[in-house]
Amino acid sequence: MKLDSLDGLMKPKSVAVVGASATPGKIGYTVIQNLQKDGYKGAVYPINPNATEILGYKVYPNVTSIPEAADAAIITVPAKFCLDVVDECGRKGIKNLIIITSGFSEVGDKELEEKMVETAHKYGSRILGPNIVGICSNSEKFNGSFAPFLPLEGKSSLISQSGALLIAIDASSYIRGVGFDKLISIGNMADIDFADLVTWLDKDENTSCISMYVEGFKDGRTFIEACQKASKPIIALKSGVSAHGAAAAASHTGSLAGAAKVYGAAFQQAGVIQAADLDDLFDRSLALSLQPPMKGENLLVLTNGGGVGVLATDAAEKYGVPLKFAPADVQAELKKHMPEFGSAKNPVDMTGMAGNEWYYATTKFSYAHKWVDGLVVLYCETAMTNPLEIAQSIKKAVDDSGVKGKPVTVSFVGGERSVNAMRWLVDHGIPAYGAPDLAINAIAALREFYKMKEIVNEAPISCEGFQYEQAVEIINKARTEGRDSLTEIEAKQVFSIYGLPVTATELAKTEDEAVALAKKIGFPVVMKIVSPDILHKSDAGGVKVNIKDEAAARDAYQTILKNAKAYKANANIHGIAVQEMAPWGTEVILGSVNDPTFGPTMMFGLGGIFVEVLKDVTFRVAPVSQNQALRMFSEIRGAPILAGVRGEAPRDREALADVICRYSSMIIQLQDEISESDANPVLVYEEGKGVKVVDARIILKKKA
Amino acid sequence: MKLDSLDGLMKPKSVAVVGASATPGKIGYTVIQNLQKDGYKGAVYPINPNATEILGYKVYPNVTSIPEAADAAIITVPAKFCLDVVDECGRKGIKNLIIITSGFSEVGDKELEEKMVETAHKYGSRILGPNIVGICSNSEKFNGSFAPFLPLEGKSSLISQSGALLIAIDASSYIRGVGFDKLISIGNMADIDFADLVTWLDKDENTSCISMYVEGFKDGRTFIEACQKASKPIIALKSGVSAHGAAAAASHTGSLAGAAKVYGAAFQQAGVIQAADLDDLFDRSLALSLQPPMKGENLLVLTNGGGVGVLATDAAEKYGVPLKFAPADVQAELKKHMPEFGSAKNPVDMTGMAGNEWYYATTKFSYAHKWVDGLVVLYCETAMTNPLEIAQSIKKAVDDSGVKGKPVTVSFVGGERSVNAMRWLVDHGIPAYGAPDLAINAIAALREFYKMKEIVNEAPISCEGFQYEQAVEIINKARTEGRDSLTEIEAKQVFSIYGLPVTATELAKTEDEAVALAKKIGFPVVMKIVSPDILHKSDAGGVKVNIKDEAAARDAYQTILKNAKAYKANANIHGIAVQEMAPWGTEVILGSVNDPTFGPTMMFGLGGIFVEVLKDVTFRVAPVSQNQALRMFSEIRGAPILAGVRGEAPRDREALADVICRYSSMIIQLQDEISESDANPVLVYEEGKGVKVVDARIILKKKA
Repeated sequence: MKLDSLDGLMKPKSVAVVGASATPGKIGYTVIQNLQKDGYKGAVYPINPNATEILGYKVYPNVTSIPEAADAAIITVPAKFCLDVVDECGRKGIKNLIIITSGFSEVGDKELEEKMVETAHKYGSRILGPNIVGICSNSEKFNGSFAPFLPLEGKSSLISQSGALLIAIDASSYIRGVGFDKLISIGNMADIDFADLVTWLDKDENTSCISMYVEGFKDGRTFIEACQKASKPIIALKSGVSAHGAAAAASHTGSLAGAAKVYGAAFQQAGVIQAADLDDLFDRSLALSLQPPMKGENLLVLTNGGGVGVLATDAAEKYGVPLKFAPADVQAELKKHMPEFGSAKNPVDMTGMAGNEWYYATTKFSYAHKWVDGLVVLYCETAMTNPLEIAQSIKKAVDDSGVKGKPVTVSFVGGERSVNAMRWLVDHGIPAYGAPDLAINAIAALREFYKMKEIVNEAPISCEGFQYEQAVEIINKARTEGRDSLTEIEAKQVFSIYGLPVTATELAKTEDEAVALAKKIGFPVVMKIVSPDILHKSDAGGVKVNIKDEAAARDAYQTILKNAKAYKANANIHGIAVQEMAPWGTEVILGSVNDPTFGPTMMFGLGGIFVEVLKDVTFRVAPVSQNQALRMFSEIRGAPILAGVRGEAPRDREALADVICRYSSMIIQLQDEISESDANPVLVYEEGKGVKVVDARIILKKKA
Repeated sequence: MKLDSLDGLMKPKSVAVVGASATPGKIGYTVIQNLQKDGYKGAVYPINPNATEILGYKVYPNVTSIPEAADAAIITVPAKFCLDVVDECGRKGIKNLIIITSGFSEVGDKELEEKMVETAHKYGSRILGPNIVGICSNSEKFNGSFAPFLPLEGKSSLISQSGALLIAIDASSYIRGVGFDKLISIGNMADIDFADLVTWLDKDENTSCISMYVEGFKDGRTFIEACQKASKPIIALKSGVSAHGAAAAASHTGSLAGAAKVYGAAFQQAGVIQAADLDDLFDRSLALSLQPPMKGENLLVLTNGGGVGVLATDAAEKYGVPLKFAPADVQAELKKHMPEFGSAKNPVDMTGMAGNEWYYATTKFSYAHKWVDGLVVLYCETAMTNPLEIAQSIKKAVDDSGVKGKPVTVSFVGGERSVNAMRWLVDHGIPAYGAPDLAINAIAALREFYKMKEIVNEAPISCEGFQYEQAVEIINKARTEGRDSLTEIEAKQVFSIYGLPVTATELAKTEDEAVALAKKIGFPVVMKIVSPDILHKSDAGGVKVNIKDEAAARDAYQTILKNAKAYKANANIHGIAVQEMAPWGTEVILGSVNDPTFGPTMMFGLGGIFVEVLKDVTFRVAPVSQNQALRMFSEIRGAPILAGVRGEAPRDREALADVICRYSSMIIQLQDEISESDANPVLVYEEGKGVKVVDARIILKKKA
């Protein structure tokens, strides 16, 4: 059955409260009280078999008896009754269920929760929760929650995975002066998840920025897709970045993939801006909800104080929007509105002598000037000026500039008068902050938003159309032998199927075969033990390199075999791999994990000490386009290495990007088969000369 | 003449206002008005030849005519009259001059400023300023400034190098609820500098934390020394960290020494805590002024909300006080004060059901428990609890615990009621913040303070007593030849004098000499061109390594000579250095710069890509004790390399620390001679096997 749209959930014209109570203090009472007190205009149907009237509303004995199929039901009955209520609502035709009740999967009872969702979906109904505070919506004057009041009005809507935090944020919105249109408690996400709400809020005329407090997604991929399709700014505070352990990872890549890094990659791919902490979530949401994106990189800062100007300069560098000097014509014009000892560079320091007129003139000129992509106006409270008048001058200047669509943020450092002036600015659509670095951070968020959307919207370069069946055949063979990993030769065969340039490697089962293969491949060669029982080949004395002739090949064959048997007497030895000896190049490591939240995920890093000592790696949720791969190269600290250092030619980054793209296609197509994998090392040669995968490893997924 | 103590400046019993005005709006009027309105109890002597009375005070025509030698004079007359006023004050015996007037070195007139200081010092007088706002002191009810009012009362005192920022901070103290005892505007620092004020404030009974906004020091070393001697916490917000360029540096080290890194090192050595931004300066000052240092690393977090608990956990890791699980007995006790689904680990989540009693019980128990070194209490505002009562429960629990001397910080997330409860807590000595990460950051500052003081107080290991004269002789020889750098051989001689283990290197002037030296040193050797005109020896084909016998030595001698002449026909060639070929070890780079603010400063980094690609280096203002040097090793990203990676033995860090200590003594003793220097590479062998300086470079200071 087709599931209901969320319109009835977010903008219900009528609402049933199942578990309504006449006892003040009970949640079933608080919800009724909140609907009434906060001005909800729709019909309210309290349901309680033992009451006739609550707060003036007529009470119904059960869902069936209410006079219409309400748009939504708010459910507060104990957990054990919830399944019946869901069913009753379904029969009545109530499609949106806000289940406040707790005591489900969060205390271990996953089954009951799943049954409710199953039942709801049978009727096409949707469930928000369970284990939530509810929904607060200013535009609907709908407080369908036990939060004590609607938040300060604003243009962001916030989704919170913590109920306690949602209630605290509700109250703190008034203190911070940062408002929200909606606060949505998402709880256990048994049915409706972040992706559903992002999709709905992106179309909501009362929401201009989607904010979220995230502890963890159930399905990371639907989240990414929903965000990529959205056009509004989305900002997330992700908590629990220090908790995730990758303790028992079987591959190198697995041991390097922490939640913070994979979530960070996913947010970037989704076009979601990150908040550093709770204050930052408020600060950045405010700017994102009120101002347009910053489309270029020229940021101009106006100030009446050198000190805050320098602090803003530092912040601009820190937050990725470094200041550049304005062109001469801009400086010349600005110079007219300051004393001789002022500065028209950037920051533009009008000095403490700046009053309303100078603020008006410099703001109007700067905002209108084509060089300026974004404007930050700073003000230190002085005895000679009135903060509110300065605020009004700034606002009027922006309005009078004749220009639209550029971001402006403001910081006033001062006392009560400055705070009031900033409230006025926010009420008039200009985000304002109590410290200069916050105004810079806010405009940096608007710059990030623009850059991310550019990336999300770029045409993906696809690397598809490979021989999936052949790969599965190799894997199945290993499985039938009871193995949970492929040998190097098998892994390289799978890589080859996906077009990865592996070193030629073939299996010799006798000394003579080894010599023949070495001749076929061409000396010098490398020889390695192939045994599913020996994973660390070097430790076992199972690797010989730079074998230059037949005699050496024969010697190597016997030595390796002897070493392997000494290392593990009963090892199952497939034979000895004879391998092309690739010329040396820049070592990189590629790899994949199957992230529990995001599924197949690629890793890239430089080899050697970069990965071993510095853990200098970066991630992307697969598939990874070539453009995304090229961006990965600039994200690691060792980035200059690939660009060419110490007079070396640049490395073949395009070829490497192509390999990442193909590799990522492989882990997507084979996601039911591959758990983790490494290509380590991959040697990258100078531009035009390609790359070579020297060693390969594939760990299989356990099948049920 | 002995200069006056600053008592009369900071706590004047009487004050002359030179340039007092009867015209409202003028600074000379505002100062008089502020003294009166803010309750200054001392005598006020306005001085103005054209007035008889201002705001009820009797006006004197000149300094000479006032009835006593006032403790301080506040000077607001135009710049051109200031020198005369300084002299007149001196003659009158007024020893403390607060010169508000601007128009001196900040607009380029350094000479007039210097003359004022010279004149003042002749009388033993001191100058604060010029170009300042003045001094505000709550404990003296002394508003000797044109800031509109005294700040909110508090226990920190703030020194600001920006006047505009000081005025803005003054006003914003009331908004933030973070007070100050004194605000001191330091302006051009013609005489009194940060070091003087730190020394005085450290003895001030009304100051428990010294806060500062710093743009730049004049003399970094006196600052470090003053801070090291101080016992109170000192916190600095340093601005302009992005501005400093090291553009024209002659050495590798010079190009890597930016202001942020050298200031960072200096603050660390001084025991000064850094603030990340303006908000952080307020937040950390509050904690440092109210709470004792955190003496161990066990931080416990109590909360009523899982969400803020997770955010606190993330913050604890970020700010260097990562949470550990409490011992079983602690958990068992805490479990008594929460429902079954709560958590007694760390954070201790009492759940939303926590009321006053649970907060009281868990706080009292935790604060008293010997395992706990610091406590953070978090609270999310709920409908069922009263924030003020929670606050009072926390305070009472701490008081009733019977324990003192441990830090506690608090965060309440909520609305007006929470804000008021936090104000109450601050008034009762417990720092409280609107977000969980801020409470963690605050207690992390108290931990930093303790750790820094431990380091500052450790006994320095000195490396002194070297042959200074011998070194100067080598340098003078180069100078008489008109050179501004030493040759490698000369530089190594100087290094040797200071006990640095350089590779044996001697100068051959003929082919036969080269062979004889090679035999003496022992093959294999390295040979290198020695010419003050050829700094990049490798580029000139002037280096040959691994010379194994006499024939090779003869060949190398001729080849190098030919290459050098081809490279630069008229180069002054001293000869060819024959050098011991050191066995390979871990490459590090040591170096020095003469920082404009802090003087001789050491750099340490790992060689190769670590320095070239990652700029992974760290600094210390010289001299550097062995203990400090050991600490430097752990500050770079490549730290694990010295500890031994990939199964390698640990490197000889003690020997390297000794070399750094000696090197730092050298650059101190020779600070008038050496501008920059490098020892690059220095090879570090495994423990017990020492280090070897393979190449050396010394750039001389230009002499007047």
